[in-house]
Amino acid sequence: MRPIVTVFATSPDRGRGLARDMPVRWALEEAGQPYDVRLCSFEALKQPEHLRLQPFGQIPTYEDGEVALFESGAIVLHIAERHAGLLPRDVPGRARAVAWIFAALSTVEPPIVERAMASLTERDTSWYAARMPLLDARVHTRLQQLANRLGDAEWLDGAFSAGDLMMISVLRRLGGSGIIEAYPNLGLYVARGESRPAFARAFEAQLAVFRAASAG
Amino acid sequence: MRPIVTVFATSPDRGRGLARDMPVRWALEEAGQPYDVRLCSFEALKQPEHLRLQPFGQIPTYEDGEVALFESGAIVLHIAERHAGLLPRDVPGRARAVAWIFAALSTVEPPIVERAMASLTERDTSWYAARMPLLDARVHTRLQQLANRLGDAEWLDGAFSAGDLMMISVLRRLGGSGIIEAYPNLGLYVARGESRPAFARAFEAQLAVFRAASAG
Repeated sequence: MRPIVTVFATSPDRGRGLARDMPVRWALEEAGQPYDVRLCSFEALKQPEHLRLQPFGQIPTYEDGEVALFESGAIVLHIAERHAGLLPRDVPGRARAVAWIFAALSTVEPPIVERAMASLTERDTSWYAARMPLLDARVHTRLQQLANRLGDAEWLDGAFSAGDLMMISVLRRLGGSGIIEAYPNLGLYVARGESRPAFARAFEAQLAVFRAASAG
Repeated sequence: MRPIVTVFATSPDRGRGLARDMPVRWALEEAGQPYDVRLCSFEALKQPEHLRLQPFGQIPTYEDGEVALFESGAIVLHIAERHAGLLPRDVPGRARAVAWIFAALSTVEPPIVERAMASLTERDTSWYAARMPLLDARVHTRLQQLANRLGDAEWLDGAFSAGDLMMISVLRRLGGSGIIEAYPNLGLYVARGESRPAFARAFEAQLAVFRAASAG
């Protein structure tokens, strides 16, 4: 069967490709694997039927007839293990690509999401202006380290991998903040990811869902 | 060769087993795999030699002669793939265990670390008292969802797996906060993990490093 991915019926990012189905769609497009989506309202995410698949009431989930999965990192890794082109074939290279998936989600993303959350939920507080420089500094620390490692390489470790796919997906959350512009090599790295045909197909597909919901 | 794991020469947690070498040590003990450690000062973490292994200047790293890795999630997964007892053998069960590793690090841990960071770095600010309930609420949301899923089961999905190992490692960060006590089944879950002989051996080993440094 074609894999089924759950996505927001109306994504809060308004189709900017920042919801967590985006890296899964991108991986499936890189793998040349057709898939279907199941649209979830915010109400549906809280229902027992969805919580059985996704205990934290989030999207995406992934079902392919053999496995039923949650967590975008685990889903991308599962797809990458079953299709050519997203993981090196040698054991050390493959293990390092997996390390970059974890680094994206567990080391680089948390300060980026913390900063974005504060922008959304604490903008009207008395402490917003005083705290924001602290949050920016935490993001800059990680970006500087990542920029140092990337240098003028095209991708993080040899050929494009699921590690790059996830890191670029995380860095895209900074779009519009003006932060990534301080690291020209990271800006070019994100642009290289976004210029891949598989990225473009995934992006258009998620945007089409949002547009249809807005028009409906 | 025996794997080599980098650890803090003087762990900031004072031997409470909350540094990120702990899940790696625990996984190696569950696997019955002897290992060596290399002690790193905070200064050494910033040196080019270490940054080549760990671009973000953190511990742990893992080298076994075949692979050289960073990110505790990737290291635990690598160990689990090479030894019996930490991943189910069937594909769907294995994939779900990997999903729980990602859920621990990418969904449950960020609000826990954010709360701990605020306790450490923002305690003297004017906004600390007003913000803390927001941070507590984010942690409670995830713990309630996790408690609902666990129910009265022993482990998250059948037999003990690397997913439990990582989730329990993350939940242990709440020790002393009084938060986990609101979820009796999660408290028992953590205690079951801590009562495993492999956990005890890993805990004693990291504590011995801290004690030796303090005495030295």
